[in-house]
Amino acid sequence: MSTTLFTTHEQKLQQALQAVHNRGFYSAYPEVPSGKIYGQTAKADGLEAFDGYCGADFALKQGGCDGTVGNETSPYGISLKTQYPKANIGEILECICDACPAWRNASIETRVGCAMEILDRLNKRSFEMAFAVMHTSGQGFMMAFQAGGPHAQDRGLEAIAYAYKAMKDCPEETTWKKQVGRDDFVTLDKTYKIVPRGIGLVIGCSTFPTWNTYPGLFASLVTGNAVIVKPHPGAILPLAITVDICQDVLTEAGFDANLVTLVPDTLENPITTKLVARPEIQIIDYTGGTEFGNWVEANAGSAVVYTEKAGVNSVIIDSVEQMKAVSGNLAFSLCLYSGQMCTTPQNIFVPRAGIDTADGHISFDDVANAIVKGVDWMLSDQGRANEVLGAIQNEATAARIDSAAGDVLRDGVVIEHTMFSDARTRTVKIIKLDASQRDVFEQEMFGPLVYIISTDSTDQSIELAASIARSQGAISCGLYSTNDEVIEKAVDAMSLAGVPVSCNLVGNIWVNQSAAFSDFHVSGANPSGNATLSDAAFVVGRFNMVQCRTFVPESSKVEA
Amino acid sequence: MSTTLFTTHEQKLQQALQAVHNRGFYSAYPEVPSGKIYGQTAKADGLEAFDGYCGADFALKQGGCDGTVGNETSPYGISLKTQYPKANIGEILECICDACPAWRNASIETRVGCAMEILDRLNKRSFEMAFAVMHTSGQGFMMAFQAGGPHAQDRGLEAIAYAYKAMKDCPEETTWKKQVGRDDFVTLDKTYKIVPRGIGLVIGCSTFPTWNTYPGLFASLVTGNAVIVKPHPGAILPLAITVDICQDVLTEAGFDANLVTLVPDTLENPITTKLVARPEIQIIDYTGGTEFGNWVEANAGSAVVYTEKAGVNSVIIDSVEQMKAVSGNLAFSLCLYSGQMCTTPQNIFVPRAGIDTADGHISFDDVANAIVKGVDWMLSDQGRANEVLGAIQNEATAARIDSAAGDVLRDGVVIEHTMFSDARTRTVKIIKLDASQRDVFEQEMFGPLVYIISTDSTDQSIELAASIARSQGAISCGLYSTNDEVIEKAVDAMSLAGVPVSCNLVGNIWVNQSAAFSDFHVSGANPSGNATLSDAAFVVGRFNMVQCRTFVPESSKVEA
Repeated sequence: MSTTLFTTHEQKLQQALQAVHNRGFYSAYPEVPSGKIYGQTAKADGLEAFDGYCGADFALKQGGCDGTVGNETSPYGISLKTQYPKANIGEILECICDACPAWRNASIETRVGCAMEILDRLNKRSFEMAFAVMHTSGQGFMMAFQAGGPHAQDRGLEAIAYAYKAMKDCPEETTWKKQVGRDDFVTLDKTYKIVPRGIGLVIGCSTFPTWNTYPGLFASLVTGNAVIVKPHPGAILPLAITVDICQDVLTEAGFDANLVTLVPDTLENPITTKLVARPEIQIIDYTGGTEFGNWVEANAGSAVVYTEKAGVNSVIIDSVEQMKAVSGNLAFSLCLYSGQMCTTPQNIFVPRAGIDTADGHISFDDVANAIVKGVDWMLSDQGRANEVLGAIQNEATAARIDSAAGDVLRDGVVIEHTMFSDARTRTVKIIKLDASQRDVFEQEMFGPLVYIISTDSTDQSIELAASIARSQGAISCGLYSTNDEVIEKAVDAMSLAGVPVSCNLVGNIWVNQSAAFSDFHVSGANPSGNATLSDAAFVVGRFNMVQCRTFVPESSKVEA
Repeated sequence: MSTTLFTTHEQKLQQALQAVHNRGFYSAYPEVPSGKIYGQTAKADGLEAFDGYCGADFALKQGGCDGTVGNETSPYGISLKTQYPKANIGEILECICDACPAWRNASIETRVGCAMEILDRLNKRSFEMAFAVMHTSGQGFMMAFQAGGPHAQDRGLEAIAYAYKAMKDCPEETTWKKQVGRDDFVTLDKTYKIVPRGIGLVIGCSTFPTWNTYPGLFASLVTGNAVIVKPHPGAILPLAITVDICQDVLTEAGFDANLVTLVPDTLENPITTKLVARPEIQIIDYTGGTEFGNWVEANAGSAVVYTEKAGVNSVIIDSVEQMKAVSGNLAFSLCLYSGQMCTTPQNIFVPRAGIDTADGHISFDDVANAIVKGVDWMLSDQGRANEVLGAIQNEATAARIDSAAGDVLRDGVVIEHTMFSDARTRTVKIIKLDASQRDVFEQEMFGPLVYIISTDSTDQSIELAASIARSQGAISCGLYSTNDEVIEKAVDAMSLAGVPVSCNLVGNIWVNQSAAFSDFHVSGANPSGNATLSDAAFVVGRFNMVQCRTFVPESSKVEA
């Protein structure tokens, strides 16, 4: 069985290994939600499965649970009423510890084979996952399918590839033979054993419940650890489906279901701090707000911690070929999922004196108006607006947008949803600021709120974007310039601040996108997080290599 | 210049890369202190250089210093009276920050070339280094030569090899081309830049000033960071020589000497806590006692920390072929450098009912007596005893041995040194304990003190060794058994406790040895340290990869 799964998926693993080495385009799981790929009834089946979860008890194979928990409400206005097993932390940890020895003693190939089989089954159920992600995160359907399904699966595979490579970096055994005299040798047989750290805790977020969870989940799992999945209380279902599939595959392969468990909670009775405090937890993957992320980093004890927190992202506009191509591109980035991506730009820096274009100089206001018009156009068709904006995950986000005041260039308002009358929606609010108002724009304003900020010069734009990245963190930066010297200067400054720069994006590619196998998501080099998805550093701390050396007598001679 | 150094040393780098991949025997720098290898006058030249340092000011090229500092006394009874530049922390950090940009922007090959040239020059001065290490650590000459010279250089090269491999793991650039329609593609040119964390602080120890410092020093340096070397106040000279060579090579290559600086202090006015508190310090390598190591880990702020602390090492004797071969082997391990190695065994667990040998069953007392006799023989010749024992680095260690009481099987006493009448010496003290006296033997008793502990069974021996490793840390474990099942059980238990096991060592190989390129020193999996020398995890946290992606217009078609 163990060899079978690895063999089944080995070609895909090899492609993934090649992809992270070359970093060109690669995707293992089709991103097009097409019946031709996923089956003609896949969408209907997915919706039926989702409807089946609503109002029902979600059964899992794990132990240490008593009663149920769950209180999810879709940002589209539906109460899910799904109930999940409620874990007793002490008891479930006992079950997990019992499950660990067989898993850590399994071969690398066995563990990787199981993990890739899990991804394969997740992929087949991408439509079901799309509805689950849509109705917890508030993403539009297309985005929920792609980011919640194949793109998340790609990120999981990427982490598996790095972990596989890291585990294979050291041989399992070797012979060490040292000459210690003219005819004298000392020989040792050496073995190297992967010792996992123990139990990994993966703390999910509400906006990208699978995309941000899979890397840590799979990296910990294939390196021999058990994994507790602690979903955000508002986005449990996507991870319950994930854990269910994990438990299916693991038990079919002869392992204990408790190797991957779901430990959900509610906003009213959070349990994350209790989990973090447990000494059994030796790895923590966290995605979420900065404040709690900092708490996790400071209170993790001896656990290794990988965090993806928040930041304040900038766009620096210095000069462009065509303003319309730029504003059209930016408009989609600003509208997509109502600005609720950790990569969505917040601050757009434009020189007060305006910018050069291929069609001549245009003023600051021309630039700002072009962006406003771009957003207006994007949201002018209600169907397109609903699909692109999705819904607002969290009431606090809506309130934040509503209360933002100042020189409002474009108001952010409720927009009716054609399918869900109770959806929580806001359009994109755009406010004009001056570089002197740093106290306003250096704060993260999560959601569909954009500041267009007039600066003395592009030099000041760069300085502000970089210094805010260093102090507050930043995950993306868009740069528009036709001047190579400006590009070099800006890229240098942002790189030092740990921010990847996207230069002169127009057309069908956007600053808030991050492609598995090619783009490192979060650099780990500023306060927006200490880890990246994914690289060697993301996996090597999840296990230790412990050796054993055994003396080999020299049969050919008598010991002196 | 930059290419020249890399080319000069590239073959050695490739051999090192091969060695860490295969993990068989490899050494880049000859360990035999022979005139044929190092030059007929090398030893005399080295002694002359050492004598020249004594009582003199040690000049360095670094800035930010005013006045001098230094108060080293050789464990062999000589006051070195060497004075080193005294750094003003704020000022030297300014000098270092100024030096950083050129270094971080240099190519990987330039940095690696410089580092390998430094190692090459260190190797040529191994005799000089031997006297410096001998008269600060108290090691015997042969050990000071090997561990302080070529073996330390090997460890440095090993770290360089891992860092080089990690930096080369990601391409510097790639083209990402994604199909987004029947004839539509999006193309991005991507570059990946290594961004070092900033300044590394390497905190040295008094017993192995170079061996434990070189891995962190070279790993941080080649990944683009500047490095502050903070030697133990009792062992400054070996690292002053090291930093001097670093500054020579760096300035000859056109870089600023402040990229590697020495910041020494005295026991009376320690400055390490002040350095750790500085935000410029973003990497810390620490070797030393557990208490201060824990403080460093807890107070490092956002710095990445690699620690090698202390532990309580065990030998488990279950059954042997020939007791004399075992006791002879153990005796050398216990005597070497007066038990002041972090890998020296402290607790020898033997079943109360005795053990089986090829010559029949022998009692617990027979085993204990054999070990005592082995040590007696090892120290019976004064010349051999002086060379093997060396001197006691620290008065506190001597006092600890003197005050240890109980059922003393062999006393640890002052032994006259033939060459240095004022040398601080102690022979190996051996005390018999029972398994019930865990409160005594679970404490680290650094220095030449050995407990031989009677247990109910080998199972209890294993359980005690493993549980002490988990709670107190352990860096080595010796196992003697002729029973494969016992070996498997013990190796499993100790591996899980993060302790490498050496099985049935006899002859010219000892449990306290750790060979670069093959043996991982400290596993990182128990309280004796969070890092290993060396592996990928030891290097990947020292830099981040920050990308830049640039839109490539499709010249063949008109944008939609």
